[in-house]
Amino acid sequence: MKKRVIGIDIGGTFTKYGFVCEDGELTHEGSIPSDTYPDIKDFLNDLCGKLKEIIKKEDYEVIGLGVGAPNGNFYTGRIEFAPNLLWKGIIDLAGLLKGHFNIPIIVTNDANAAAIGELIYGGGQGMNDFIMITLGTGLGSGFIVNGKIVYGHDGFAGELGHTVAVPEGRQCACGKQGCLETYVSASGIKRTMYKMIASEIEDSELRNVSFNDLDAKMISKAARNGDHLALKAFDYTGKMLGLKLADAVAHTSPEAIFLFGGLSCAGDLIFTPTKKYMEHYLLPVFRNKVKLLPSALQNKNIAVLGAGALIWQEIKK
Amino acid sequence: MKKRVIGIDIGGTFTKYGFVCEDGELTHEGSIPSDTYPDIKDFLNDLCGKLKEIIKKEDYEVIGLGVGAPNGNFYTGRIEFAPNLLWKGIIDLAGLLKGHFNIPIIVTNDANAAAIGELIYGGGQGMNDFIMITLGTGLGSGFIVNGKIVYGHDGFAGELGHTVAVPEGRQCACGKQGCLETYVSASGIKRTMYKMIASEIEDSELRNVSFNDLDAKMISKAARNGDHLALKAFDYTGKMLGLKLADAVAHTSPEAIFLFGGLSCAGDLIFTPTKKYMEHYLLPVFRNKVKLLPSALQNKNIAVLGAGALIWQEIKK
Repeated sequence: MKKRVIGIDIGGTFTKYGFVCEDGELTHEGSIPSDTYPDIKDFLNDLCGKLKEIIKKEDYEVIGLGVGAPNGNFYTGRIEFAPNLLWKGIIDLAGLLKGHFNIPIIVTNDANAAAIGELIYGGGQGMNDFIMITLGTGLGSGFIVNGKIVYGHDGFAGELGHTVAVPEGRQCACGKQGCLETYVSASGIKRTMYKMIASEIEDSELRNVSFNDLDAKMISKAARNGDHLALKAFDYTGKMLGLKLADAVAHTSPEAIFLFGGLSCAGDLIFTPTKKYMEHYLLPVFRNKVKLLPSALQNKNIAVLGAGALIWQEIKK
Repeated sequence: MKKRVIGIDIGGTFTKYGFVCEDGELTHEGSIPSDTYPDIKDFLNDLCGKLKEIIKKEDYEVIGLGVGAPNGNFYTGRIEFAPNLLWKGIIDLAGLLKGHFNIPIIVTNDANAAAIGELIYGGGQGMNDFIMITLGTGLGSGFIVNGKIVYGHDGFAGELGHTVAVPEGRQCACGKQGCLETYVSASGIKRTMYKMIASEIEDSELRNVSFNDLDAKMISKAARNGDHLALKAFDYTGKMLGLKLADAVAHTSPEAIFLFGGLSCAGDLIFTPTKKYMEHYLLPVFRNKVKLLPSALQNKNIAVLGAGALIWQEIKK
């Protein structure tokens, strides 16, 4: 029998899964919707049903299961008050999964899972200290310090998306104002683009697009075409990210910062201003030391891979 | 012979020292000026001369030496570009000290030394995750994660004083603008008090005091007497500290934050607004979990004690 672990990445809309062997090969990737199951038990029945079919067909020996989930808590195995999921309050995810698979199960934050993926199979191999940033609809992050994920006292450490970039700034879905995620994410740059259009008088091809039709790729394309306002939107996005990365660097002094997904695929458009402003806001002793890099797993399912890596790590302890 | 380690705390004006036994008892405390020696070799000759006298008199067996110094680097044993010291550039402090004492020698940042002091002998005993803030002329900080000081990739991690509280804000001695230290420190609250006097029209007993005559204790006394502007100055100071502590909490999720020295002796005047604004700026999942506490070593020489604790830790490894 072939030894495998299961990696699961629960998102607000879709949940992705895959089987991970020890050397990091990811197979049988698939997904099911997360937002069509009001009851998590029905969701887990369908998800685990699919996984069991694969296990039976491939004759896998599954020795562990890792999950990355919004507000997933490593210490308790629970999802706690995740604003983007249908399942409210505290969900004993590890407990519910044990009903389907009686094997070691670990739950963590989705961005922490991505950080573990980068550490074990990506650009973070051999590094003791780095920060992982995942840029999607929101901004996720995980901190590696002394070769380990920082979970902190309550299991929720490594949070950058909901630190304050602008006090009393933009309204965030979390209830606070001015969170970094409201500036640096696919939805953040849309808001910035609209603000630029409102405050400036320069022409822009995006003046013809409604807010709901606009997406980050269109802003990126406009910027590549030399659209000044789109370029300004990227500069401002990089400024906000650079400002808050400077804090994270001062706190934990990483060797590198990896950017993954969505906005990070805009390449120089986002990397150049982020680096410029990060260095500007850094104490001189930290300047020109930290590498700002694209994730080495850019086209892979990093959180599924990371969730798998996490449980492999645990099993080998 | 009685086993002891030496703890040294190098400051811009004075350097303090003492002998620390394993259970944390601190004896033979003393100090020499730091700002009257243009050549560090003369400084170390005098300092080590004093230490050797004590060792001879007490018949101590000194088995290690720990130093807390501004910009002290744990990895290299050097002081690197410390803005507040007469000795510029890179100083091989551990190397120079080895010429006087051929024993294990460790150098770290002064605030990291304080954090180790709190961890081993203070309120941080038994905690795995906390943040230490030292409030003096400036703002120092040290982060304990998973029971260890965070040094990071280059040895300078745990820096809060020079993170940006207000982008393009107050000029800082480090060359940047808007550093937290320019708002939250003895000199920071002086600047805030002056700003309050300039922008408001309310009467204040401090309108009669020149900037150079004003100190944090006078602001504290005025606030205790009900002076509205002094109270506003404390509220604003707490707001800035709370804002940046919220970031540090999101990054590392500590069990507690300890405040030590100067401003922290103002008690409720600083603790109440700091706590209020920290909770305000925190993501709900972190709220009402982190203890904001005065250092348990408030009246002790925490950095000397911590430097001693650091070398005791190293010896026992």
